[in-house]
Amino acid sequence: MTDTLRLGIAGLGTVGVGVVKIVQRQAALLSARTGHEITISAVSARTRDKDRGVNLAAYAWEDDPVALAKRDDVDVFLELMGGDEGPAKDATEAALKAGKDVVSANKALLAHHGQALAELAEAQGVALRFEAAVAGGIPVIKSLTEGLAGNRITRVMGVMNGTCNYILTRMDEAGLSYQEAFDEADGLGYLEADPNLDVGGIDAGHKLALLASIAFGTKVAFDDMRLEGIGAVSIDDIRRAGDLGYKIKLLGVAQMTGRGLEQRMTPCLVPETSPLGQLVGGTNMVVIEGDAVEQIVLRGPGAGEGPTASAVVGDICDIARGLRLPVFGQPAGSLTTAPPANAESPACFYLRMELVDKPGALAKVATALGENGISIDRMRQYDHDGTNAPVLIITHKAARPDLDAALAALPATGVVAGAPVALRIEDV
Amino acid sequence: MTDTLRLGIAGLGTVGVGVVKIVQRQAALLSARTGHEITISAVSARTRDKDRGVNLAAYAWEDDPVALAKRDDVDVFLELMGGDEGPAKDATEAALKAGKDVVSANKALLAHHGQALAELAEAQGVALRFEAAVAGGIPVIKSLTEGLAGNRITRVMGVMNGTCNYILTRMDEAGLSYQEAFDEADGLGYLEADPNLDVGGIDAGHKLALLASIAFGTKVAFDDMRLEGIGAVSIDDIRRAGDLGYKIKLLGVAQMTGRGLEQRMTPCLVPETSPLGQLVGGTNMVVIEGDAVEQIVLRGPGAGEGPTASAVVGDICDIARGLRLPVFGQPAGSLTTAPPANAESPACFYLRMELVDKPGALAKVATALGENGISIDRMRQYDHDGTNAPVLIITHKAARPDLDAALAALPATGVVAGAPVALRIEDV
Repeated sequence: MTDTLRLGIAGLGTVGVGVVKIVQRQAALLSARTGHEITISAVSARTRDKDRGVNLAAYAWEDDPVALAKRDDVDVFLELMGGDEGPAKDATEAALKAGKDVVSANKALLAHHGQALAELAEAQGVALRFEAAVAGGIPVIKSLTEGLAGNRITRVMGVMNGTCNYILTRMDEAGLSYQEAFDEADGLGYLEADPNLDVGGIDAGHKLALLASIAFGTKVAFDDMRLEGIGAVSIDDIRRAGDLGYKIKLLGVAQMTGRGLEQRMTPCLVPETSPLGQLVGGTNMVVIEGDAVEQIVLRGPGAGEGPTASAVVGDICDIARGLRLPVFGQPAGSLTTAPPANAESPACFYLRMELVDKPGALAKVATALGENGISIDRMRQYDHDGTNAPVLIITHKAARPDLDAALAALPATGVVAGAPVALRIEDV
Repeated sequence: MTDTLRLGIAGLGTVGVGVVKIVQRQAALLSARTGHEITISAVSARTRDKDRGVNLAAYAWEDDPVALAKRDDVDVFLELMGGDEGPAKDATEAALKAGKDVVSANKALLAHHGQALAELAEAQGVALRFEAAVAGGIPVIKSLTEGLAGNRITRVMGVMNGTCNYILTRMDEAGLSYQEAFDEADGLGYLEADPNLDVGGIDAGHKLALLASIAFGTKVAFDDMRLEGIGAVSIDDIRRAGDLGYKIKLLGVAQMTGRGLEQRMTPCLVPETSPLGQLVGGTNMVVIEGDAVEQIVLRGPGAGEGPTASAVVGDICDIARGLRLPVFGQPAGSLTTAPPANAESPACFYLRMELVDKPGALAKVATALGENGISIDRMRQYDHDGTNAPVLIITHKAARPDLDAALAALPATGVVAGAPVALRIEDV
C-alpha cells in the first residue's frame, strides 16, 4: 500500500455523500488515526448533473461502476449503490477480482451473495467489509467479530429497522392505526421504494442473517429465516400488551439450538422496562449474548447520512490500518451449513381473542388450551363490547407446535369469535 | 509470529482465571477465528498453592512476573495483577522492552503511566491493549478507536463503576441510606480493598481518563479530572430528584470545549427516561457522541470473571490477527497536551435547600439567585418539616461560576437553613 489510500465511490446517495463529506472534513484526523492520507480518486452515480451539496470537481467521474471498480488509482472500492443484483453485484465482483478492498453498505447483496463474495475476497487476499449494512452507525459487526471473539455467541437479537420501530412507536404513543402510522412514515420519506422491504421485515431480516453468520460461524442463510412483518400488528394489541407491561417490537432473533439454527424476524412482545422495550422511534438496538460476556446492548441511529457514513469510514480506516479479517469473522471455507431449526424455541405467548357471551366460555378455552399442553400464566377479561368480550392470556412457556395445535382447536369450542391473535413474548 | 500465539499470564485472580477458562474451553473457536492456536506457556501469581478451579498443571510457573514477562516462550504478556506501581508496572515495562505484545486490564497503571507505556510500546513496534480496563465486557475502546474512527468525538459519558451504581440503585429502590447501601455492597464483596477507589470515583475516573485520551487525541490527564464521589449523595436527594423525573448517577463526562478539555466524574442528575437514567445495578454504560454518528450507547457488565476475561481475549485475538494499532488510537508522539477546562460547561442545576418559616423567604432566594445570573425554571416547595420547608429548584442553564456565586450569596438572605445541595443535570 502507498502512503495514500485512494477511494472509488460508487453511489452518491445519502451514504455516498456522507462519506465524501467525512473524507473532506476530517482529512487531518483520518491521517493521524490511520497513518495514511485517505483520498477520493473517482466517483460514479446514475446521474452526473445533480447538486449533491458537496464539491466533486476534484474526482474523476465514471458512468460505469464496473469501470470505477477496476481503476488503477482506486485502492478501496465503496459499493454504496444498493440492490442485490445488477451493477452493485457486478461492480463488487469486478473490484474484488481486480484485487481491490471493498467496503459495502449493501445488506441485500451480502445476504444473498455473501458466501460467494467472501470466498472471492479471501481468495484474492482483500477485505470485504460491511459495517454500514447492519444497524447504521452502531459498530455491531466489529463488536461481534472482534471485541467478542472470545465468546461462544448464544443469541443475537435486534430491532434493526428504524422505520418499523417508528411506525410501532407512533401507534403506541399517538394511538394511530397501522395505516395512519404507515402513511405518516411514508410522508416523511422513511420508507423504501418497495415498502415491503421495511414493513415486511425483509431489510431487517437481511441484517439479522449477516449477524447470524458471524455469530455462529455459519453460511448466510437468509432464505431459512422466518419473516413476518408488522402489517398485522393492531393498535388493539399494542394497547393490550401495554396493559400487561409489554411493548411490541419487530424483533430479530438468531440462536443456535439443538434443533438447528433459529432465525426469526417477527413482531414480539418484550417487557416495557427492558432496553428493547424502551427503544422508541427510529433508533436501532442490537443485543448480543455470549457465554463469557453475558449480555451486551448496543444502541444508536440505524440510518441517516452521518451515522451510515461513519460506519463506512470506520471500515476504510480498518483497511488503511492493514486489518483484513475474513469477511464473516472466520475463513469463508470454514463456515458451516447449519440446518434450520424445525421449530422455534419455547416461549411464553400473548393471546388475544374475543369470547362470545355464553356461560362457561372461558372454561372451554382454558380446557382446549390445556388439552394441547398450553397452560395459562395470567389472564385478563375486558368488559363486553356488544356481544363479545376481549380476553388476554399470557401462557406459560410453551412449544410453538403445541400452541398452534391449541389455536387450531379453538374454533371447535364454539365460544371464540374470529381468529385469535398470538404473539411470542421474547425472553430478553 | 509462529502459528501458535503463546500467552504468559501474570495474575490469577478473577480475571486471570477467567482468561484461562476461555483459552481452555474455546481453543477450537479461537483458532477458527484467528487462524492461530492460542496457548498458555506460563503463569504467575502471589500464591502458588491455591485451588483456583482451573487446571494449571500444563503451564510453567514463575514467582516473578518480570521473569514471566521476559520468557522466550511468551509472545503476549497479560498483566492482570493490578496496581499502578510495583510489579504490574515493572512487568509491563519488561515485557514491552523484550518485544512482547501486552494486554492489560489495569486502568490505574494506564491512567498514571499510559503515555510513557504507549511511547515504549510504539517504539518497540508491539501492541499494548487494555479493553478490559474500561467498562468490563463492553467493547468500548474498540468502538471508539476503530468503529468510530471517522468521527470527531464531541462527548464521552459513562456510568463505569458498577459498585457505585449498585449503591445508588439500592438507595433508590429500597430506600436505604448511603451507609446502609455501602455496607450491603461491602458484604457482597463488591468493594475494592480501598473503598474510596470505588465510592470516591477514582476507579471510574481512571477509565474516563483513558477514554478521553482516545476520544480527543490527548495525553491521558487523570490528574486534571474533577472527581467527586457518591459519599455525599443523600436518600433525600435521590427521592426529590425522582419526584422531578430524574435519577442520580455517578456520571463521567469528557468533552473538548473552547475552554479546554473538560473531564468530570461527579454525581449528576439524568432524566429517568434516558438510557443512563434507566441503568440499574452493577451494569455499565458508555455513551459516545460524534459529529457523524450522533450518539451510540453501549451497555453491559462492567466487571466479573466472564465479561472481563471476554475483553482480554478479544484483545488477544486482535493481536493474533496482526492488529497492532497505536495504544491510544493515534501515535503516542502525536497526542496533544490539552489545557484543562477552567470551568465546566453550562448546565441546568438541581438545588435543594431548607427555607426557614418567614414571609417572603422564597422571594429572597429567587432574588439572590437572579442577581447572580441564575434563573429558575421549575420550583417545588414541600410542606414544612417542623420549622423548615424543603424547596427544590431546577435552574435554567447556568455557568458554574455564577451558580457558585449565587450559592455563596444565599446565607446572607437569612432564610436558608444549612448548606444547599447543588447537583448538575447532565443533558444526555
